[in-house]
Amino acid sequence: MRASFYERNQRFRIGEAPMPTPAADEALLRVRSVGICGTDLHIFQGHLDHRIPVGGTIGHEALADVVDAPAASGFRPGERVVVEPLKMCGACRACRMGAAYLCYRLRVLGVEEPGGMQEYWAVPTARLLRVPVTLGDDEAAVIEPLAVATHDVRRAEVKEGDAVVVLGGGPIGALIAMVARHRGARVLVSEVNPFRVEIMRKLGLDTVDPEALASRVSAWTDGDGADVVFEVTGNPAAVRVMTSLVRVWGTVSMVAIHGESVPVDLYRFFARELTMHGSRLYSRGDWEEAISLAATGAVTLAPLVTRRIPLESLQQGMEETLRGGPVMKVLINLAG
Amino acid sequence: MRASFYERNQRFRIGEAPMPTPAADEALLRVRSVGICGTDLHIFQGHLDHRIPVGGTIGHEALADVVDAPAASGFRPGERVVVEPLKMCGACRACRMGAAYLCYRLRVLGVEEPGGMQEYWAVPTARLLRVPVTLGDDEAAVIEPLAVATHDVRRAEVKEGDAVVVLGGGPIGALIAMVARHRGARVLVSEVNPFRVEIMRKLGLDTVDPEALASRVSAWTDGDGADVVFEVTGNPAAVRVMTSLVRVWGTVSMVAIHGESVPVDLYRFFARELTMHGSRLYSRGDWEEAISLAATGAVTLAPLVTRRIPLESLQQGMEETLRGGPVMKVLINLAG
Repeated sequence: MRASFYERNQRFRIGEAPMPTPAADEALLRVRSVGICGTDLHIFQGHLDHRIPVGGTIGHEALADVVDAPAASGFRPGERVVVEPLKMCGACRACRMGAAYLCYRLRVLGVEEPGGMQEYWAVPTARLLRVPVTLGDDEAAVIEPLAVATHDVRRAEVKEGDAVVVLGGGPIGALIAMVARHRGARVLVSEVNPFRVEIMRKLGLDTVDPEALASRVSAWTDGDGADVVFEVTGNPAAVRVMTSLVRVWGTVSMVAIHGESVPVDLYRFFARELTMHGSRLYSRGDWEEAISLAATGAVTLAPLVTRRIPLESLQQGMEETLRGGPVMKVLINLAG
Repeated sequence: MRASFYERNQRFRIGEAPMPTPAADEALLRVRSVGICGTDLHIFQGHLDHRIPVGGTIGHEALADVVDAPAASGFRPGERVVVEPLKMCGACRACRMGAAYLCYRLRVLGVEEPGGMQEYWAVPTARLLRVPVTLGDDEAAVIEPLAVATHDVRRAEVKEGDAVVVLGGGPIGALIAMVARHRGARVLVSEVNPFRVEIMRKLGLDTVDPEALASRVSAWTDGDGADVVFEVTGNPAAVRVMTSLVRVWGTVSMVAIHGESVPVDLYRFFARELTMHGSRLYSRGDWEEAISLAATGAVTLAPLVTRRIPLESLQQGMEETLRGGPVMKVLINLAG
């Protein structure tokens, strides 16, 4: 079968690999598509080399067909599934607290463990979720980032009528905006890339240029500030401005990965008694809610997929996604 | 009467002032003592010049006797009171949300409005609280910082059995540690000043040198991290370390004033889903709880007062407190 291998130094190799042999608790999947995610771009740039074996197979936003599964699992060949790409220890403090997705010994499929950027993939059946037949492949392919967004919005406790600002209109920012809107919030997305601004417009989302953000939020909230701000850019400039946008007792949700320490206006946290939550990954409940949101049409997913490429173009797809410009969600299409 | 005047450029003047004339809703107080607080040191250094009139009278940690009060207020001459030094608008978003102490038009007695560093002081009766007769003057003099600490511990949701780290063993840090201990938490105070370490020891509080902090917390919590960390130093070095000390889903309470933006490890907020709360001032309930904690002996207050000086020594007292060294809470004694 065909597979991809991360060789370090911004290089992927495509080649042959033996078919994976599922363990007793695993299903054999045939991968339909895998999305390129922000985390994959961090991997591509070498930021996670300490977590990934040389020649490892990445990819954690997978849509797949069940080829074979233990009968007791309830999964049948031909069923379309998405993958919750986590292995938890079940015993550590985080697991015992109900925060298993933050397990102190967490192993992520597509990071520490083999991921979905290969034709066939062996995955524990406990980590599979069925995709409703009403969802198209492009929609199903973004259920994983939708689970992230669902988690982020839940953790930030977005309520009906809230004024919500999303810093960054990439795939996760757009999904957070749509989930928050579905909760009854008013939403404003700060984004500078005209390609992404146009996608937001198609999704019915209001956008603002970062240059005009502060004055717009002030006017929008009668000078009080927003209820919740999501930082989804990973850009220190967004961190500089985020604290100035939030009302007394308001919330900053830290969704982005900041590889280095970034200056934060801690006085503003003190003076307005702000709260900042880090927000990472998802619980099983977030996945189930994401599938429900997708299946009921509460969020619009298909326009987020702006490009589909074969596995052989992975290297080029990574380079283009990293460069930015006219790109949103890129899918590696393995079924073709 | 004698009063102090903040003249800017690290200078106070002591001189005569006319007796204040109370408004219809105000009591006339004779001040017994006023503590020098961290905020007063910020004022002394010019950091709050935009909020304080030239020649203004500062001081917001006051213990006083009622000289005269409107009969309807219920206060009688000779009663010993402490002062909640806040004026709220009652109409803004914060006031309407129940966060009146964060009022968007908040005026603080001792900052925007005249404070207690004068012999007589006119204060709205709604802002007075009676001091139980069982409390000595030194104990009553630190009820205001105890209300701050009570607020901080409440907001951080410290629970029985929690492992709590307090960064900074000044008056507020010591009070937070004692309130958290009273809630049933295990408490560790990080402090380098030997004078303050000795006071912690007298209060029965466990201390650690900042150099040994990280390894001590790791051993203390089986590698999981502390449940709650209070940042009470205002020192960027403490901000650097604070995120590394907290467990998954743990809390950082930002009590200190950081005048400039400080580098923060936002990746750790993301990876462990940490929460940071800013914590400022107090609600009326925090004052009432502080008085109850003091009156029942749940916290030990008298050892925190390490010096009493006359109003005439205010200048020197500010300089010495700013220098640090063998100093904890300094009281301006006006009754003598």
